[in-house]
Amino acid sequence: MNKQLIFKKRPVGMPKSDTWSLETHPIPEPKEGEVVVQQHYISLDPAMRGWMNDAKSYIPPIQIGEVMRAGSVGKVVKTNNHPKFNEGDFVSGWGGVQQYAVTDGENWYKVDERIAPLPMYIGTLGMPGMTAYFGILQEGKIKAGDIVLVSGAAGAVGSLVGQIAKIKGCTVIGIAGGADKCKYIVDELGFDGAIDYKSENIATALKRECPKGIDVYFDNVGGEILDAALTKLRMNARVIICGAISQYNNRENVKGPKNYLSLLVNRASMKGMIVFDYANDYGKAAQEMGTWIASGKLKSKEDIYEGIENFPETFERLFTGAKLGKLVLKVIED
Amino acid sequence: MNKQLIFKKRPVGMPKSDTWSLETHPIPEPKEGEVVVQQHYISLDPAMRGWMNDAKSYIPPIQIGEVMRAGSVGKVVKTNNHPKFNEGDFVSGWGGVQQYAVTDGENWYKVDERIAPLPMYIGTLGMPGMTAYFGILQEGKIKAGDIVLVSGAAGAVGSLVGQIAKIKGCTVIGIAGGADKCKYIVDELGFDGAIDYKSENIATALKRECPKGIDVYFDNVGGEILDAALTKLRMNARVIICGAISQYNNRENVKGPKNYLSLLVNRASMKGMIVFDYANDYGKAAQEMGTWIASGKLKSKEDIYEGIENFPETFERLFTGAKLGKLVLKVIED
Repeated sequence: MNKQLIFKKRPVGMPKSDTWSLETHPIPEPKEGEVVVQQHYISLDPAMRGWMNDAKSYIPPIQIGEVMRAGSVGKVVKTNNHPKFNEGDFVSGWGGVQQYAVTDGENWYKVDERIAPLPMYIGTLGMPGMTAYFGILQEGKIKAGDIVLVSGAAGAVGSLVGQIAKIKGCTVIGIAGGADKCKYIVDELGFDGAIDYKSENIATALKRECPKGIDVYFDNVGGEILDAALTKLRMNARVIICGAISQYNNRENVKGPKNYLSLLVNRASMKGMIVFDYANDYGKAAQEMGTWIASGKLKSKEDIYEGIENFPETFERLFTGAKLGKLVLKVIED
Repeated sequence: MNKQLIFKKRPVGMPKSDTWSLETHPIPEPKEGEVVVQQHYISLDPAMRGWMNDAKSYIPPIQIGEVMRAGSVGKVVKTNNHPKFNEGDFVSGWGGVQQYAVTDGENWYKVDERIAPLPMYIGTLGMPGMTAYFGILQEGKIKAGDIVLVSGAAGAVGSLVGQIAKIKGCTVIGIAGGADKCKYIVDELGFDGAIDYKSENIATALKRECPKGIDVYFDNVGGEILDAALTKLRMNARVIICGAISQYNNRENVKGPKNYLSLLVNRASMKGMIVFDYANDYGKAAQEMGTWIASGKLKSKEDIYEGIENFPETFERLFTGAKLGKLVLKVIED
């Protein structure tokens, strides 16, 4: 049997108990060319909140009645003449929040659990890792000596952005929520400084941590932190808009950055990015990230919770911040 | 004697009667290496409002007690061994709102009234022209077939932006205030469409005029028009932030663009520009603009008012929109 989380009702604001329902259905037989994947781990990402809105975006919204969309990693347990995947292969793809995914394998790819633990394939070596890698290198165009500010700095993407910028010789300041996370990014990840948005005035803290301003701001959060960062731009600074987690559960309008005219004064740019645009280069990026991990230059941190029935409360952790690193849900039952 | 407009008090909101005072002083003798310029025309630009605020910006604010800063064009009437300028030369520079400027000539350059009428040197061949030229070509990176939207479309910069985009084979829609201006940009300047922000709902009008979206939005106004334009971005669109005239006299915060996440969805960029960065290439640009004017491809329109004592009410026209094309004040007395 297959436990599936079905998307039942579009939330207004934070998802609630009526947003999803957990259902149990038999695992369908794979058709010719399909496989059955027993899913081990589900990826939880802030972007999922956007997919729940009935709005034109970079991918179509999740439809009511569908399995909740999610990235995943698991093992092929059955194949009906699939051209590429065999039983026993580990694979990652868009399996959704369910225990078994039946798929033709489009947009799935093989992973190797001997090289890295499975959860890492939906984290540092998966979408968040690719987002960080291409975001800070291609979009941020960082060079040694740049001053880089990143929000969501203890999160899946932010923690990698900061570490990659350090590898490239930048000065890196992270914004995170709470003393523990701030200590973590400085002591464990090697950031040069940290700002605790939950206890500090951002403007004051930015003066302390970035007295010379910033060359790159990598934004995962939007709202007031984006506005504060805009006041610190240096000439020709780059603001990368990767997300706006502070705004995703808004019931009102998104808060626009009132300090956007800093872009004019400083000839700076603000640019949006979607990681899918870099899909052709994921392999090369994952390889380089892997090398950095192997040599100890890059730390990959997954925060793993258990039980498909705990998806809703685990999902909430994305927005309350009650997690460290990449949020993952283990859905395979022992 | 030299009538000078002195900056007396920083305005909050729109400048008022106590912002400036008109004073008459003797013309000082030029020191060694200086010239006296009898000013003919003063340039009035929205950016001047920003220079009046006591805020860090791309140039220092005007100080209380100084002559009001302004671009100008006039004739050298006296020289004290100036190395480059002779009596009778026509020159353009930062002469300020006064009838005579005494200067060492730094940042001034010769102009030729036989090639173009003097007011054009502070318009199409001056700062607004350079802003339009480098803004739409270098920052906008337009190519034939692009759909270009420009606000302030009947103004000094916007009218040139649209015409240059037409010369380069783009489809051009302009946003202007009032039926006359809309008719002007379509019938006289050759724009493909116009939106009257004073009588139309911008969102509805954008659907009509830009059904396929926009590749480039050249923003002179900010506020709600910027927000509406953001909803129409195509993939990899470029938003050029040249100004935000709707926000310059705000007594409250600048209105931030709440639809900025369209940048993310559409991998679009928003970039600020300051024309001074292109100073090394002004000459080349003016030459090309001149060729376009001579061949009838580009129309240069100046709206000329008279009398230095009328500066305050003329300045107000920038913000009420009661002018067409480049706003100029003639300060030489017959």
